[in-house]
Amino acid sequence: MAGEPGGSGFSRRHLLFGGAAAAGAGAAAVLGAQALAGALAPTEDGTAASARGVGATAVGDALVPFHGAHQAGVETPPQTHARFIALDLRSDVDAAALRRMLRVLSDDAARVTQGRAPLADSEPELALAPARLTVTFGFGPGLVARAGGIAPDWLRPLPPFGVDRLRPEWSDGDLLIHLGADDPVTVAHAARMLLKDARSFANVRWSQQGFRRAAGAEASGSTMRNLFGQLDGTVNPVPGSADFDELVWSNGGPGWMAGGTSLVLRRIAMDLDGWDRVDRPGREAAVGRRLRDGAPLTGAREHDEPDFAALTPVGFPVIADYSHLRRSRSDVPGERIFRRGYNYDEAPAGGAVSDAGLLFASYQADVDRQFVPIQRRLDELDLLNEWTTPVGSAVFAIPPGCGPDGYVGDSLV
Amino acid sequence: MAGEPGGSGFSRRHLLFGGAAAAGAGAAAVLGAQALAGALAPTEDGTAASARGVGATAVGDALVPFHGAHQAGVETPPQTHARFIALDLRSDVDAAALRRMLRVLSDDAARVTQGRAPLADSEPELALAPARLTVTFGFGPGLVARAGGIAPDWLRPLPPFGVDRLRPEWSDGDLLIHLGADDPVTVAHAARMLLKDARSFANVRWSQQGFRRAAGAEASGSTMRNLFGQLDGTVNPVPGSADFDELVWSNGGPGWMAGGTSLVLRRIAMDLDGWDRVDRPGREAAVGRRLRDGAPLTGAREHDEPDFAALTPVGFPVIADYSHLRRSRSDVPGERIFRRGYNYDEAPAGGAVSDAGLLFASYQADVDRQFVPIQRRLDELDLLNEWTTPVGSAVFAIPPGCGPDGYVGDSLV
Repeated sequence: MAGEPGGSGFSRRHLLFGGAAAAGAGAAAVLGAQALAGALAPTEDGTAASARGVGATAVGDALVPFHGAHQAGVETPPQTHARFIALDLRSDVDAAALRRMLRVLSDDAARVTQGRAPLADSEPELALAPARLTVTFGFGPGLVARAGGIAPDWLRPLPPFGVDRLRPEWSDGDLLIHLGADDPVTVAHAARMLLKDARSFANVRWSQQGFRRAAGAEASGSTMRNLFGQLDGTVNPVPGSADFDELVWSNGGPGWMAGGTSLVLRRIAMDLDGWDRVDRPGREAAVGRRLRDGAPLTGAREHDEPDFAALTPVGFPVIADYSHLRRSRSDVPGERIFRRGYNYDEAPAGGAVSDAGLLFASYQADVDRQFVPIQRRLDELDLLNEWTTPVGSAVFAIPPGCGPDGYVGDSLV
Repeated sequence: MAGEPGGSGFSRRHLLFGGAAAAGAGAAAVLGAQALAGALAPTEDGTAASARGVGATAVGDALVPFHGAHQAGVETPPQTHARFIALDLRSDVDAAALRRMLRVLSDDAARVTQGRAPLADSEPELALAPARLTVTFGFGPGLVARAGGIAPDWLRPLPPFGVDRLRPEWSDGDLLIHLGADDPVTVAHAARMLLKDARSFANVRWSQQGFRRAAGAEASGSTMRNLFGQLDGTVNPVPGSADFDELVWSNGGPGWMAGGTSLVLRRIAMDLDGWDRVDRPGREAAVGRRLRDGAPLTGAREHDEPDFAALTPVGFPVIADYSHLRRSRSDVPGERIFRRGYNYDEAPAGGAVSDAGLLFASYQADVDRQFVPIQRRLDELDLLNEWTTPVGSAVFAIPPGCGPDGYVGDSLV
């Protein structure tokens, strides 16, 4: 269905909504958009630039394929902007309705990520700069139950941690729609298109926005600097490396998850005012790395292996036992996660000058085996806990990708 | 002061805060940051790239001069990200304190816009990608009164309009800090630096974020498309053109405003769901322009002059009297404004799928002569009012720029 031309979209709507869209003023808008979507479709060479009429641009026209064995948006080098939106399914949504919803949303995503207006897009011109847009879907336990499927063992809220101050408005959810692109207008438009098509089936539970450096603002492959000024994510499995697949892609879970992964998304508030009161040596001791270049305190370069046995002249470890670097490091080979987080910075309230933090996002084959032991160690002792507070938490199954004739979730429902 | 090396910053702090910063743990942090700010200062060739150590990048290293006859951020081609922050002065801030505050903030802005860490920046690495950062200051009537200055006649809340549904949390304020950059991390860091230095003098009243297309995502000089899909700002004075200076820069007001301008900032909520129910011909009739390319309904290209006398075969005007294009057009030559607005799109609440709109920003020499008559005509009759609601409104005097030895506002206080 994803491959069919725009012109057949009306009959799809008709099928889905029993002809309601055909009645009244809505019909003209839908048909008008269909016709326009056709007129604005990309040219045969696959670029949207000529249809957009403003000339090709490197950032705007960059495409990430939607279809494949894995969903895009995990291995994809992180885009500048991310939006994570969780929805709660309406009570009357059964397996058949889920199937319809996932087919529509996958079709929308297949189009909009390729710079083509989704069916019934009433602002199709906004779809013409994909800017590496990816749309990644995740399933909470509620959705898997509604589908009548078998959930992976780890698909449930994380165990409670002592540092947590979780708020329901940033936690849990049945369906995740994760959008990423190098252009904020592209994210806004794609989010609206998908939410419009989801709203017959589900309500928005929460929506969180994050950012990194702009495309072209730093050398590609740079480690992200968070709002504490730390390089964040130095030790991270690299897509394409020997152990990446084993660490990230599901193995041994229910069959429908083959080619899928898990996402742990934690909203971590950062106390920037408290952090300001710590001098640089204190900050570097808390992290175990130099702030300037991210090198471990025992090394010279960012990716040098830390030497946890090294001692100061007076006999203390150079990298302290309470440091984030030491506590997050495991001796168990498979206890690693793939991080792909974002900064957030919202309007401050109540006399504060910042409401900022990190949308911590990690992907791993098995939450219980990989994420939980690391987080337990950090919960017990990590000096960074002094200035960081998890205020939201959610776990989603990220199902595998789909082919041009399928939809995300077609292995489940 | 702006030109002095980082090392003298401690004495400046000492001067400003009576030595409080020198006591306790804060001192080490401040001194540490000073030392680092020196170490990270740009090289003699004026680029921050070598100090950043990640190689030059076109987007990250682009600089907009801070000092000059006019403040930057008005004529500057709009950056991707904007943040408008309004502050209320503390009750004990007198003219002498205002002077200290404006000197500190101007010094911060002079540094951070040039890719140099401000004094006492505790995350100086985040300052190294200016990405066309501009910092523009605006004064509300409260600040001018506190300075003992003469306010321009137009420096007061706009007259009430019938369409207004204004909320105090997005209206008014004593001091505006307007940041713009092509990189969202740069904006976040600069905003925090300035607010930290402002907080002894003023509290944040509101903070609003907006966005346009990413740098490199569309051809330069393109008119912005808003979230209705309209090209927004086609008829706009062009910086450098014959009448720009007369339209935008203050003339005939109080002497301290020479080289300054006024900003009208309106938060305009857009009812995207209602707009969705309008077909494309209906939308184009409401606007008076084609959605696809922004051409007036009587023309072929975006910048064609509209023909308001043209009639349809059955005798109606092609560009309707109620259209936004017709209503916003004045026959009085000086009744024009310079728009520089941004989209906004926040997390929706209460079952909605969007909370989106426009941060309408216009600059003009005289609010009463230029903005108010246009807005009055639109208030009386403009079909777009059906789907747009002003929910915030503020007017600021944008004082002239300053030289390297001065500060923004030095003509006032």
